[in-house]
Amino acid sequence: MKCKGRVAIVIGSKSDLEYAERAEKVLREAGVETEVRVLSAHRDPEALDQYIKENDGEIDVYIAMAGLSAALPGYIASRTDKPVIGVPIPAGPLKGVDALLSIVQMPRGVPVAGVGIGAAENAALLALRILRVAGKCNG
Amino acid sequence: MKCKGRVAIVIGSKSDLEYAERAEKVLREAGVETEVRVLSAHRDPEALDQYIKENDGEIDVYIAMAGLSAALPGYIASRTDKPVIGVPIPAGPLKGVDALLSIVQMPRGVPVAGVGIGAAENAALLALRILRVAGKCNG
Amino acid sequence: MKCKGRVAIVIGSKSDLEYAERAEKVLREAGVETEVRVLSAHRDPEALDQYIKENDGEIDVYIAMAGLSAALPGYIASRTDKPVIGVPIPAGPLKGVDALLSIVQMPRGVPVAGVGIGAAENAALLALRILRVAGKCNG
Amino acid sequence: MKCKGRVAIVIGSKSDLEYAERAEKVLREAGVETEVRVLSAHRDPEALDQYIKENDGEIDVYIAMAGLSAALPGYIASRTDKPVIGVPIPAGPLKGVDALLSIVQMPRGVPVAGVGIGAAENAALLALRILRVAGKCNG
Amino acid sequence: MKCKGRVAIVIGSKSDLEYAERAEKVLREAGVETEVRVLSAHRDPEALDQYIKENDGEIDVYIAMAGLSAALPGYIASRTDKPVIGVPIPAGPLKGVDALLSIVQMPRGVPVAGVGIGAAENAALLALRILRVAGKCNG
Amino acid sequence: MKCKGRVAIVIGSKSDLEYAERAEKVLREAGVETEVRVLSAHRDPEALDQYIKENDGEIDVYIAMAGLSAALPGYIASRTDKPVIGVPIPAGPLKGVDALLSIVQMPRGVPVAGVGIGAAENAALLALRILRVAGKCNG
Amino acid sequence: MKCKGRVAIVIGSKSDLEYAERAEKVLREAGVETEVRVLSAHRDPEALDQYIKENDGEIDVYIAMAGLSAALPGYIASRTDKPVIGVPIPAGPLKGVDALLSIVQMPRGVPVAGVGIGAAENAALLALRILRVAGKCNG
Amino acid sequence: MKCKGRVAIVIGSKSDLEYAERAEKVLREAGVETEVRVLSAHRDPEALDQYIKENDGEIDVYIAMAGLSAALPGYIASRTDKPVIGVPIPAGPLKGVDALLSIVQMPRGVPVAGVGIGAAENAALLALRILRVAGKCNG
Repeated sequence: MKCKGRVAIVIGSKSDLEYAERAEKVLREAGVETEVRVLSAHRDPEALDQYIKENDGEIDVYIAMAGLSAALPGYIASRTDKPVIGVPIPAGPLKGVDALLSIVQMPRGVPVAGVGIGAAENAALLALRILRVAGKCNG
Repeated sequence: MKCKGRVAIVIGSKSDLEYAERAEKVLREAGVETEVRVLSAHRDPEALDQYIKENDGEIDVYIAMAGLSAALPGYIASRTDKPVIGVPIPAGPLKGVDALLSIVQMPRGVPVAGVGIGAAENAALLALRILRVAGKCNG
Repeated sequence: MKCKGRVAIVIGSKSDLEYAERAEKVLREAGVETEVRVLSAHRDPEALDQYIKENDGEIDVYIAMAGLSAALPGYIASRTDKPVIGVPIPAGPLKGVDALLSIVQMPRGVPVAGVGIGAAENAALLALRILRVAGKCNG
Repeated sequence: MKCKGRVAIVIGSKSDLEYAERAEKVLREAGVETEVRVLSAHRDPEALDQYIKENDGEIDVYIAMAGLSAALPGYIASRTDKPVIGVPIPAGPLKGVDALLSIVQMPRGVPVAGVGIGAAENAALLALRILRVAGKCNG
Repeated sequence: MKCKGRVAIVIGSKSDLEYAERAEKVLREAGVETEVRVLSAHRDPEALDQYIKENDGEIDVYIAMAGLSAALPGYIASRTDKPVIGVPIPAGPLKGVDALLSIVQMPRGVPVAGVGIGAAENAALLALRILRVAGKCNG
Repeated sequence: MKCKGRVAIVIGSKSDLEYAERAEKVLREAGVETEVRVLSAHRDPEALDQYIKENDGEIDVYIAMAGLSAALPGYIASRTDKPVIGVPIPAGPLKGVDALLSIVQMPRGVPVAGVGIGAAENAALLALRILRVAGKCNG
Repeated sequence: MKCKGRVAIVIGSKSDLEYAERAEKVLREAGVETEVRVLSAHRDPEALDQYIKENDGEIDVYIAMAGLSAALPGYIASRTDKPVIGVPIPAGPLKGVDALLSIVQMPRGVPVAGVGIGAAENAALLALRILRVAGKCNG
Repeated sequence: MKCKGRVAIVIGSKSDLEYAERAEKVLREAGVETEVRVLSAHRDPEALDQYIKENDGEIDVYIAMAGLSAALPGYIASRTDKPVIGVPIPAGPLKGVDALLSIVQMPRGVPVAGVGIGAAENAALLALRILRVAGKCNG
């Protein structure tokens, strides 16, 4: 399967980089254009806002990864109408349970697509399924 | 916003019907063609297989809702390459925690997009975001 | 004890209003100026940004209340350097455990002062302790 | 005690092999015919279906082992009327709590016999108890 | 399907009787001989010991139901080599999580077949599967 | 403080010996007569019954330690009217949460005195407090 | 069985009175002298200190009951060398899980005897067992 | 930013010293006067009482750190009307979940400002925000 399209991978902290790279690898092998940005919803909100505003038109799907109180996926979802996939990172003593709940338990109106704790590859595969529905994949 | 496209809503039990209808309402108001099927992965696997085989080509997105050991979303995801959104239903004494974990903690290779416990509307809104990326919405 | 000062109470949803009023009552009885705003971090981010920008100079302490994926306290904390007190609201099937974790498990650099689930009065009393340290209370 | 009979051990992933072997050892020492198959309910549903169809008549008891969203035991239980024993594997950050809930919280009509997290030997011993009731053991 | 055989249903407290009756109904409809005994492992150990000793030879399968620290299934399993099915009853503030863990987390050597919280019918259906393997059912 | 009296320390498995020894050390330093027995409620019920019957008259307090489905403290408590202190051992993937719930969530009528997970020393100190009330300590 | 002796029942809040009365009833029927005091470790520390100092010599056993962050049993245990039994009260959204952990997870050196959530009668029965070891019961 | 003021850091055990030092470093870099005391609410209540009485007038904010049944922050909060920040330490098998609940689930009237598990730096930063509101910081 080969796909076109652009997927933005946003992580809340440099320490989550290995997860971002695992998602990126799956997407690149499918031919998708990807970019990884380290932009915390809590520490870099203005840079994150600017990144979304400037790039949202070209992005098909966001993958947002964060641990602990994982506000990042919901933050992006409230600023775009593109699909946002959230990956809870198993950081800290609660091993990602906190991040999982923060990611999926969104209020009505702002959906995030949560995948399993640490499931970077599945996030990428879910993005590919969305690109395929959009007619951007063949094979 | 008005969208085209077809979203299948599959529930594991008749008792989940109110959730299906909440999702259906959001989708219909957006102009999306929907259908609700009661097909348990555990009790009706053959009918479920047949439904997927016969309709998968026309379906853009699946929304699968189930409580307890919520195998339904993952079951569908393993038989289609369309996006599958899973809604954990707050049934039984664990109030949907069991369903949430069953839905998101999928093995590598078979992604499901989990939303919050009981979050039928957010499942529908996530489906609309996917249809929009597919160029099936305007406004 | 009589205090001066201004405490902003921000809730993510109208359904949390009773908690806001319980906090407000404690603060008003102490003579503190309060205001209640319904501004969701996920649904009204721009109005929330604007509210913070226009009022932050006059506000001494924020009390932010939210259920589920309770992003509101952390959101405010990342846009002000005033103390932010977070109240997890016991909404939904998880009874506020999700909100509690979302509120306290903040990343390094953006502190939120979490109180107990539904503990609106304690949030107000904590705000009064802060005002007292600031020399704004007597008696 | 010596038993006749045939027990199928199915695991969802190669990484669960050590658990399968611990169960197999107990069964073999009792004289039971065993076989280990790596067949994921999510990734190999067709091969799993075929395996069950071709062998179900000769199998007395199934032992199914899986981690995370452990659909395997329930999947088999919905395709056979033989007893199915489920072993939650302590994989991933939740250490098998997710698998335990996925295995035992089955809907009405499709029973699975859950044992403890990682309890491969107990699964084998439970199978022996069933064979004994079936009059297939002596001593 | 019609089965022969005898299944003992033991409950730890009279308050669990409705669950016993739900299991009994399923078994009786299948033609199985059943009996319900209220015998707590903690409060009536001697009567329980005596019951097991006097009847074990005639019993094919035990179904043991208990809430809280649900010692009953394990207690019986340590005094018989027949299969013992454990049903966690959702009593008390923890809604059966305590009972579920007490039932499945058995030490090596003494297996219990745990079913879902409150899953009386599935316990009965599991017993029927065991009777069928024992050649005691037709149809 | 010097005490007389006899405290029985019973563990369910040899692997819990280090905890027994930590309790024993505290008791011996206080002059208390102690004994450690490895007697599983699930695997050695008859030997355990015999031990209790033969020694109960001379024993002042029992300390029972077990992991997983920790039936041992409750088992002893149902066979003696001496105080029984239960120590949940942090064995297995749930780190003693299962054992803690099994130990404290006893049915009405059969009390066990639970201490913290792995808290062998506190169990010994609690036994000393009981001996002191019994007038068996001085200093 | 008739016992002498004095058991102090301390509760952290008037709303826990029904639990205190259930324990008191068991103790009074056994002839034990009891008293119920409402003294919060957090709100009335000085009155609590004074009560302990003035009465500790005459008290054989304390039963302390509290919900939420249940500091009361540990607080008393750090100010007496009598046995302290802690009863977690199922107050608030967490239904006593918070109180259970607060009561049993005491640091080394300050033991509390925890019973089940809401288990007022078992607390009383445990106190009776201690009085019996102290030679204060007959029959 | 440079601040004046005095923050007391109290830990319940020497083993929590690394967390105290991480908080102290942040505060010292901001120019705040700090002191670290090892004073357990359970083991050293009198020394703790004395410390609070003698120093409370000069202290602006307390940071109290404890693991397990973390009574320390609430203990201090009930003896001062200064703001008390509680840091749950991830000690023991529950990794700080017990401490988190003990710290935030305070009864009405005695507020503690809870931060994340192990979040020593955020506790310090929260103290700085309070000092800033008190007009003790510039820059």
